[in-house]
Amino acid sequence: MALRTEYKEIIDSAVKAIHERTFFAQYPEHPKAYGEEAPAKGLKAYNNQVGKKFESLLQADPSSWAGEEVSPYTLKSLDIQYPIFEVDKLIVRAGRAFGTWKKVSVDDRADVLVDALERVKNRFFEIASATQHTTGQSFMMSFQASGPHASDRALETLALGYEVLKQFPENVTWEKPAGKGVIKLEKTFKPIPKGIGLVIGCSTFPTWNSVPGLFATLITGNAAIVKPHPKSVYPIAVVVAEIQNALKAAGHDPNVCQLAVDTSAKLITKQLAEHPLVKLIDYTGGSVFGNYVESLAGKATFTEKAGVNSVIIDSVADLKAVVQNLSFAVSLYTGQMCTAPQNFFIPEDGIKAGEEHISYEDLVKALCDGIVGIAKHPQIGPGTFGAVQNEATVKRVNSVKDIATLLVSPEAIANPEFPEARTTSHVVLEADAKDFGIYENELFGPIVLIIKTKNTEQSVQLAKEMAAKHGAITCAAYTTDTNVAHHITEEMESVFVPVSFNFTGGIFVNQHAAFSDFHVTGGNPAGNASFTNPDYINRRFVWVGHRMC
Amino acid sequence: MALRTEYKEIIDSAVKAIHERTFFAQYPEHPKAYGEEAPAKGLKAYNNQVGKKFESLLQADPSSWAGEEVSPYTLKSLDIQYPIFEVDKLIVRAGRAFGTWKKVSVDDRADVLVDALERVKNRFFEIASATQHTTGQSFMMSFQASGPHASDRALETLALGYEVLKQFPENVTWEKPAGKGVIKLEKTFKPIPKGIGLVIGCSTFPTWNSVPGLFATLITGNAAIVKPHPKSVYPIAVVVAEIQNALKAAGHDPNVCQLAVDTSAKLITKQLAEHPLVKLIDYTGGSVFGNYVESLAGKATFTEKAGVNSVIIDSVADLKAVVQNLSFAVSLYTGQMCTAPQNFFIPEDGIKAGEEHISYEDLVKALCDGIVGIAKHPQIGPGTFGAVQNEATVKRVNSVKDIATLLVSPEAIANPEFPEARTTSHVVLEADAKDFGIYENELFGPIVLIIKTKNTEQSVQLAKEMAAKHGAITCAAYTTDTNVAHHITEEMESVFVPVSFNFTGGIFVNQHAAFSDFHVTGGNPAGNASFTNPDYINRRFVWVGHRMC
Repeated sequence: MALRTEYKEIIDSAVKAIHERTFFAQYPEHPKAYGEEAPAKGLKAYNNQVGKKFESLLQADPSSWAGEEVSPYTLKSLDIQYPIFEVDKLIVRAGRAFGTWKKVSVDDRADVLVDALERVKNRFFEIASATQHTTGQSFMMSFQASGPHASDRALETLALGYEVLKQFPENVTWEKPAGKGVIKLEKTFKPIPKGIGLVIGCSTFPTWNSVPGLFATLITGNAAIVKPHPKSVYPIAVVVAEIQNALKAAGHDPNVCQLAVDTSAKLITKQLAEHPLVKLIDYTGGSVFGNYVESLAGKATFTEKAGVNSVIIDSVADLKAVVQNLSFAVSLYTGQMCTAPQNFFIPEDGIKAGEEHISYEDLVKALCDGIVGIAKHPQIGPGTFGAVQNEATVKRVNSVKDIATLLVSPEAIANPEFPEARTTSHVVLEADAKDFGIYENELFGPIVLIIKTKNTEQSVQLAKEMAAKHGAITCAAYTTDTNVAHHITEEMESVFVPVSFNFTGGIFVNQHAAFSDFHVTGGNPAGNASFTNPDYINRRFVWVGHRMC
Repeated sequence: MALRTEYKEIIDSAVKAIHERTFFAQYPEHPKAYGEEAPAKGLKAYNNQVGKKFESLLQADPSSWAGEEVSPYTLKSLDIQYPIFEVDKLIVRAGRAFGTWKKVSVDDRADVLVDALERVKNRFFEIASATQHTTGQSFMMSFQASGPHASDRALETLALGYEVLKQFPENVTWEKPAGKGVIKLEKTFKPIPKGIGLVIGCSTFPTWNSVPGLFATLITGNAAIVKPHPKSVYPIAVVVAEIQNALKAAGHDPNVCQLAVDTSAKLITKQLAEHPLVKLIDYTGGSVFGNYVESLAGKATFTEKAGVNSVIIDSVADLKAVVQNLSFAVSLYTGQMCTAPQNFFIPEDGIKAGEEHISYEDLVKALCDGIVGIAKHPQIGPGTFGAVQNEATVKRVNSVKDIATLLVSPEAIANPEFPEARTTSHVVLEADAKDFGIYENELFGPIVLIIKTKNTEQSVQLAKEMAAKHGAITCAAYTTDTNVAHHITEEMESVFVPVSFNFTGGIFVNQHAAFSDFHVTGGNPAGNASFTNPDYINRRFVWVGHRMC
């Protein structure tokens, strides 16, 4: 099957967007764009799946069935069982599938992968419920992050891959003048895939963080094994099933993309990662395991680990708008986003806010009030915070209360729709700049540290040092002084951290848009790869040129 | 200073050539292209330098002066002293220079670097003599490899770098529709260089193997420290001096590119490589040190190590032409090219040659005769073989005589022009396919192993296995059967080895042309990088995107 014209147009639009980096979305983020019947159909599909075997994968003969997903909203098991396969079987099937997939033309691979995304589109609402009840995200965030936003990021790597793989001609005649004659060679240039790619998912963003690597691995001709977090399988299982459907429809081996579910009692990630035929590893998760992944010899690894994200407040135009924006940024999904701010660096002499001067104490109070305000807001709170994926996060929030001066105590957030939901509001702590040991750790979840600095210069240096030592994915900065902005830019980019300046209104430091924002730079300890720069594609294959006399 | 129009045209031509991959040379390989006076001027410059301090670097206050280059043609010291600097001084100067160079625009950097190449062009003949009397290459090979070919490879990385760095816009306005309004952000995208790049040179190709990494490091905004092999400094010293001249002429700190000469008694390579501020390492040389370089955490490394290059002979159209071609390929520079064939796999039942059948024995005899014929040819021999860079190579040639069946004994090659020249012809050995241990090592220098295989299928499998285990930079294959050619292609590209099919006449498997041939694929143990694919550029910097409300 060739690359369908309408799919080629999608890819061309995506490539154009990647290079222009202006706003583009192939998959609209508004649920209404998908028709009136879609939400009910999605919910029905979700309800039909709960309590049953997940049987839509095209992977035969599992050795057993298992599943351990629990809804953070109901604390009840989803009771979905997934097929379990021995590692050797997964590898053998992947190796065999690789042997055929690597010979499929780039155009044909692209056709299958766009087709897969179009099939996934029809299941956005089911994926939304699946995401909601595994990650604890609100329904709306689940829909957007796991549906259109994830598919746009997948399309981004697929389209960039398509372009990169075609940047050199397949065949050329090379003619070199030599004296009176000419030396003539026929040359071919081929992007040869590396082998089997392992995609290791995380529990909080099971599709958004996994599909970029997955589609990059597949478009470059590698076979993929997707190893989801055992607590967050369902959303990515649907994506893998649809990739397999697209493969099958085009006459390819569905094992080009396999789902490898495991259980907490018998994790198979290391066994897969260390297998000599696994040449690529995409990973999202904690730093300790991420560092292990990066240390594996002979593998190309693409990691997104933890970071310590900073907020630098130097001066603001409109304090209320800033407080609103930051309060929302930390509250979204109870601070369980890798992009959420943690350390707020504030000068002890306070800041300029418009024409006024605001003292340190008043600013801290305003921030605390803002954060508490969202948490306690009966309409906004539950939907913004969602639920907490992992009980350990709630424990962490409570266990850190005494490590610094306690400004705000965490509380459960009442959720009328899901009274059993696992929730917590923020703990807000205050520390002095000198108390390095307190704020230099990533404290995952709704934990905000206010750090009192001598001045903005110290704020910047500390934020930079945190990023250099522990990594950072984002940095939010507020200043009305262009010289200060320039200084912050230079300092933070020297440790490869993107800065979001003066965000107010409906845009938040947490959000990284496909086709425009590089997510993680790959230049500091928060990760060694970036959604999606060309490196993210290039390291998955090798250019080989043959020559014929 | 902006990018001069004529330099921009050179870059544009190079970028076009890179993507077309047809023949292109900015710097003609024929000495006559450089004017009648150039050869004498170059020789004079060389003679003026010999026996003196190398004082044209713009690096002040050396701690001492030293040099240990010896001409393989005369076995006499060149008696050139180079400035020696403490590692800390080199790093501090590089760090300071980096601070300014990283802020220079891509256009301005490109201007300086093309200017440097134009300055180097004026010294091609001096560099030729310098290369001849450090590496032992013939004058013509010295001229071509260290002069125009090296500069073309430097231009290749510079031009690809220029393109890659400009692939995303510096600034865009991003406008996302949001309900009735629009969310507007100003975004910037910057390729941020990583820091200091170390370029570790080798003794046999002091400029050709070093300038691609050097120019890639510099165009991407990093500072460079060039650490040549202590026995082969002069050629690259001229290049560094001209880069410094070009930097100075444009008002930049010449320390953006420093030469770091050391001595065999006090090598500084590891001290430089392990320094935390050194973020990039380009390396050419043996595998043991190359593996060490690759193992260094937190560095982007670009290595070219040793490999075991194979020749697969299945069938030929014209035996004489094939024997001539292969004999010359192994003889060029006494087999001291990383691209030279070592293992000849020949089926025990012989091969088809045109309409005839040639027995294994007759083919082996023809090859031995061909190789000996060049070595003993009074006109062709000395110029083809040149001299041997390192005495250890001569020792190796003699020490391996008894590891397998001796077919041809090595002898000195009489060189009337340089009676003292360190020379040796080939040792040709014969082994059976089962004697794995004999031919699975890289035996650097004029050592040819004829390996008797059951059939071509076994030849291919062994060549593939060698490449997978020990690396390979080239593979020469001869077959008149398109199915066999297809099979060889698939098998060798699965271990990321480029195949040169049926080379006869004036083109040799050893030669990799700038702008067209990827040199080393980066996919097997022979090295982890490739001159020049986009990865070679991308890993030297990080994309960082800032956003402003």
